[in-house]
Amino acid sequence: MSIPPQSTPHPLSIVVLAAGKGTRMQSQTPKVLQPLGGRPLLAHVLETAAALQPQRLITVTGHGAEQVDAFVRGPAAELTGAAQIGIAAQVPQHGTGHAVQQAVPQLPDEHMVLVLLGDVPLVTADSLRTVLALCDNRQLALLTVQMDDPSGYGRIVRDGDGQVRAIVEHKDASAAQRAIGEVNSGIMAFPSRLLKPWLQRLGNDNAQGEYYLTDLIAMACADGVAVQAHCLPAMQGWQVAGVNSPAQLAALERRYQWQQAEQLMAAGVRLADPSRFELRAATGSVHAGRLECGQDVEIDIGCIFGGQVVLGQGCRIGAYNHIANAHIGAGSIVAPYSHIDGEQSGVRVGADARIGPFARLRPGATLGDEVHIGNFVEVKNSTLAQGAKANHLAYLGDASVGARVNYGAGAITANYDGANKHRTVIGADVHIGSNSVLVAPVTIGAGGTVGAGSTITRDTPANSLTVARARAVSVSGWQRPGKKKS
Amino acid sequence: MSIPPQSTPHPLSIVVLAAGKGTRMQSQTPKVLQPLGGRPLLAHVLETAAALQPQRLITVTGHGAEQVDAFVRGPAAELTGAAQIGIAAQVPQHGTGHAVQQAVPQLPDEHMVLVLLGDVPLVTADSLRTVLALCDNRQLALLTVQMDDPSGYGRIVRDGDGQVRAIVEHKDASAAQRAIGEVNSGIMAFPSRLLKPWLQRLGNDNAQGEYYLTDLIAMACADGVAVQAHCLPAMQGWQVAGVNSPAQLAALERRYQWQQAEQLMAAGVRLADPSRFELRAATGSVHAGRLECGQDVEIDIGCIFGGQVVLGQGCRIGAYNHIANAHIGAGSIVAPYSHIDGEQSGVRVGADARIGPFARLRPGATLGDEVHIGNFVEVKNSTLAQGAKANHLAYLGDASVGARVNYGAGAITANYDGANKHRTVIGADVHIGSNSVLVAPVTIGAGGTVGAGSTITRDTPANSLTVARARAVSVSGWQRPGKKKS
Amino acid sequence: MSIPPQSTPHPLSIVVLAAGKGTRMQSQTPKVLQPLGGRPLLAHVLETAAALQPQRLITVTGHGAEQVDAFVRGPAAELTGAAQIGIAAQVPQHGTGHAVQQAVPQLPDEHMVLVLLGDVPLVTADSLRTVLALCDNRQLALLTVQMDDPSGYGRIVRDGDGQVRAIVEHKDASAAQRAIGEVNSGIMAFPSRLLKPWLQRLGNDNAQGEYYLTDLIAMACADGVAVQAHCLPAMQGWQVAGVNSPAQLAALERRYQWQQAEQLMAAGVRLADPSRFELRAATGSVHAGRLECGQDVEIDIGCIFGGQVVLGQGCRIGAYNHIANAHIGAGSIVAPYSHIDGEQSGVRVGADARIGPFARLRPGATLGDEVHIGNFVEVKNSTLAQGAKANHLAYLGDASVGARVNYGAGAITANYDGANKHRTVIGADVHIGSNSVLVAPVTIGAGGTVGAGSTITRDTPANSLTVARARAVSVSGWQRPGKKKS
Repeated sequence: MSIPPQSTPHPLSIVVLAAGKGTRMQSQTPKVLQPLGGRPLLAHVLETAAALQPQRLITVTGHGAEQVDAFVRGPAAELTGAAQIGIAAQVPQHGTGHAVQQAVPQLPDEHMVLVLLGDVPLVTADSLRTVLALCDNRQLALLTVQMDDPSGYGRIVRDGDGQVRAIVEHKDASAAQRAIGEVNSGIMAFPSRLLKPWLQRLGNDNAQGEYYLTDLIAMACADGVAVQAHCLPAMQGWQVAGVNSPAQLAALERRYQWQQAEQLMAAGVRLADPSRFELRAATGSVHAGRLECGQDVEIDIGCIFGGQVVLGQGCRIGAYNHIANAHIGAGSIVAPYSHIDGEQSGVRVGADARIGPFARLRPGATLGDEVHIGNFVEVKNSTLAQGAKANHLAYLGDASVGARVNYGAGAITANYDGANKHRTVIGADVHIGSNSVLVAPVTIGAGGTVGAGSTITRDTPANSLTVARARAVSVSGWQRPGKKKS
Repeated sequence: MSIPPQSTPHPLSIVVLAAGKGTRMQSQTPKVLQPLGGRPLLAHVLETAAALQPQRLITVTGHGAEQVDAFVRGPAAELTGAAQIGIAAQVPQHGTGHAVQQAVPQLPDEHMVLVLLGDVPLVTADSLRTVLALCDNRQLALLTVQMDDPSGYGRIVRDGDGQVRAIVEHKDASAAQRAIGEVNSGIMAFPSRLLKPWLQRLGNDNAQGEYYLTDLIAMACADGVAVQAHCLPAMQGWQVAGVNSPAQLAALERRYQWQQAEQLMAAGVRLADPSRFELRAATGSVHAGRLECGQDVEIDIGCIFGGQVVLGQGCRIGAYNHIANAHIGAGSIVAPYSHIDGEQSGVRVGADARIGPFARLRPGATLGDEVHIGNFVEVKNSTLAQGAKANHLAYLGDASVGARVNYGAGAITANYDGANKHRTVIGADVHIGSNSVLVAPVTIGAGGTVGAGSTITRDTPANSLTVARARAVSVSGWQRPGKKKS
Repeated sequence: MSIPPQSTPHPLSIVVLAAGKGTRMQSQTPKVLQPLGGRPLLAHVLETAAALQPQRLITVTGHGAEQVDAFVRGPAAELTGAAQIGIAAQVPQHGTGHAVQQAVPQLPDEHMVLVLLGDVPLVTADSLRTVLALCDNRQLALLTVQMDDPSGYGRIVRDGDGQVRAIVEHKDASAAQRAIGEVNSGIMAFPSRLLKPWLQRLGNDNAQGEYYLTDLIAMACADGVAVQAHCLPAMQGWQVAGVNSPAQLAALERRYQWQQAEQLMAAGVRLADPSRFELRAATGSVHAGRLECGQDVEIDIGCIFGGQVVLGQGCRIGAYNHIANAHIGAGSIVAPYSHIDGEQSGVRVGADARIGPFARLRPGATLGDEVHIGNFVEVKNSTLAQGAKANHLAYLGDASVGARVNYGAGAITANYDGANKHRTVIGADVHIGSNSVLVAPVTIGAGGTVGAGSTITRDTPANSLTVARARAVSVSGWQRPGKKKS
């Protein structure tokens, strides 16, 4: 069996079935928009579809069509290089065959048609290419899978040449047929010119009164059209696993995260535990999370990465860190329980920095080389130059901090006057005393020192000591209040 | 086999064996009081027993009887609707048969008697009902289990009709008998009128010199009394798994947590990883932890829930959160690493609130809709009205905070004078400046502003700016101390 | 087969092969220095080797020899009681036989020689003792393992007496031989007097042009020397598992951690989840992490222990804690998300203390009995006497805190003047007000009170109230700034 390397020579239409209800999800969100790896199931399927370079890509929507159509017309376009994705409405929903019928007007006769399932997110483009090669715009081709326990599923009956002869439902199967472990996935490819008349002949004479796409297999056999199948081994069953319940969604999430962990380890990243590793799309993004690692990166247990994250050579990421949309420079260490999320603005950390434990870096935190951010310190929309340190219980918001500044324990930039945000500028080599407040807008001159406990509301001169502090008065013999009777 | 839906028609006595030592636990706590899901093993068994609505419920105690009796007489009564649980003392302990003998005086002759094991916590009421139906107050009935590797266990030998003929010890078993995978669980039901004479005839002619309840099976067979068995499949083996060591306790804990996760997912809750989810009893409670979720609740990895927790529709709970005895309103978000524990007083969070990351809500924290509690903020015994915000490094204790208040970074309520706690009242629309201290008892008038760095010891008027602040003085040319030679 | 209890009666040389490249690790660190349980693979192997009390212990180094030699000459000596470990250079690397050839000049003729692999870290001393007993300085002995899927590996062909007849490569194996599941581990023992001439005769007539140690098995058979093998069951396969990739390293890390968890549970420690438990060497140490627990210690999910940790009787360690080089007294509770690392100086916590949640104890934190350290509190190089409390958002650095001191929320020791660290001394029964700053060097007299919001720069008298505070001024009718148009 020879498979073309990139795409098939025949023009391709792909129909993605995305009209299902997903009752067991018990959600207001349509099933195909449920998140896997942080983005909708449908985003996974459309991205894989786009990798096959179809001339037409049509999504059949029905249940929750308002939300699904908005997704397909909006963010999903990013997955196809901004090319429009066609939509075919299926209202009401009368089965998979009925769903594909809705797309027929958009399918050119000379195309090969591949049917994908919007709730089967992990099928690989390689598997689909194999199916398309088997179809070759001449015959029907199926993606099937070997199951350890196929009971309840329709069995794939092949003849001596390996061609599919029939799909036999479990209840109709003989003992010999029930011993067959190969079952249908629902993913199929047809020549459009054969598909269309078959769909017209499709009946709904069954208990549910639905039109089943799988009935086309019998039509093909009856019409003497060959039916081929590419069968995945049981251990690849996740490729055709669908999502019908939160439990199935969780199981696929684990499989997906495990795959990502394996890919990173194969690239040399050292994960302390690949079963406790998460990499997800950024909130609201259709693109898969991406973790780009330099050489000798170590990631401890339980970390969560989101969006686009770059970890430079030799970075060491401690346990239980959450890092999203951030760039961490080479040799930097992120100690446990730190929360770094650049959201839209990004977070940048230079080389040889030390972050955490218990640090919080928010959007616009831009840290130079050798910066230290310690425990219970929050940084937002602030720049810290090389070697600056904020090691203990501090807040830096809307600040520009010079090189080698020591920002004391408990120091706070009062950047918000209740209506507007203002900037604090701290010159190089400044020392900010403990529990100081810098009331923005304010500039602390380079080389200056702010005494502990001072509230600074006006600019301070360079190379000076500035203190705002009341004199201490002691009252000797003072009695602390006693415990009141309750 | 027909099973009555609720309880058997015969009056029922249940004997729970809870006298064992549990040497391998190496604990000062008796084995049956070791916690599973945060409450004693015995609480699980007594709760299941109570579900069968017995007329008598007797616990046989021995090892650590002081602690076990106190538990049975005290908190355990909550599990039976405050009905007294009988206690039979077994001192010293001479085996399971000897244990049941101690309960005999409390067993009416006309009752069916079900023997449960205090260290086998996960058997279901349904399984027990099936055993009781088999017993039907006429014959002996066992709960048995199929084991993949039964070696070492006594095998259940059945005749052609499925009736139990004997239990054959491993060492006495023929090759054919060793191939049997069905073994006894120790959970049995008898007519009281048969049990009593059998127990009197029970001998201890064995290596350990103990009286074994399982010897009654041979007596039944000898007396021509039928012995029935309800056999659990191997995958249900956890129902009859006992706890003899910390490793077995941990394994059952995992099974128990997995079951809870599955139940929540079946109800539509979306768990990022069901194998990293905990739901436990509140500290000191005999009642199972309960997590009540609205539609479309998402729970990220590694969360721990305790006691009674309600999550409203659309709540999103981030990774590694700890939430106990709390009610979180619809649409609220709890960001990672937050610690919320209402203990006795409870915590309430309104709708559309944002909590965390790194937030701590302690007992009596009562938050209105759209309240924001940010990083490194602690709230205890305080009320925050709608839209109030405390976003950074702050402490609110014994405070009443009005609507839309902005409680600045580093602000602290000094609620403790060393002997008594006092309240702080902050009116609506107040802005509290960064690093302020509000020394309770104190009231900040509505619409007022407290300047950054101010210590407020007296009530402040409404709609005013109040500042307590020393003037800043700069000393130019000041030299910071140099590094001393060490 | 009788095994001597401690060491073999013949003098022993051990050769550890540690010259491999580990290309798939994609690391600048040589493979044998990659960490497992926090210390190099080679440390595990050398420690196991030392347990066999060899007269000579020789490491063959090649790839990355500079780093490996430095490790062997430096820290590794601690593993052998400071005895020198010999090094034999293998440059370039021409296979395992070539590697052992480099050690030949250091091998006395009368010795038994055991060859270990520097990247096979988990083989037990007991297994090696069995191999040595089989060798008995008379014959060749192998450590082999039963594999569920041996395809690709050379099979161990034994004769009717159980003696090894040959190792047959997969490609050369008959169908019957391919059914053999026993394969070679590469760990072997030889009499030195036989090993040396065999090594001289060893050829490299194979595709890789390398000298293979396994070829000695054929030589032994040809020379009529018996070849014995100790075969590990498949479930013990981790003993001979090597590390060639980050995925294999992670898998062995999981196995190693699981073993440690099982050992602790067997000793009575109660782990909420043994699959979420880590115990590692201290940073830079060659010694395994060690967790010594009193009776009734409970450890919740996801904790990480490092270096030498002692937990007293009844300690309860909450979820997600990180505890290294620390001693926690009996009855103490560490609430979740606390980070305790004593590094070189250690951390000591007394009995019945309460730490966390969100506490950070750094080197030199020395806490007496019943001390409370609460959320967002950092303690470094400080002593707190019995009953002292720092419950909220505070920093204690270089301080001596007396008994029963109440260190208020937001209080900070300003211990660093920009160049030197100074000490703060707080007498017994002192109350430090919220958001105070104590500018070291400073002493707060016993029984004194520091008013909230005070900055204290000079010593304060005992039993007095000291306040440094500006008077509050209110400006009525003040208007807060309005939102600027952007």
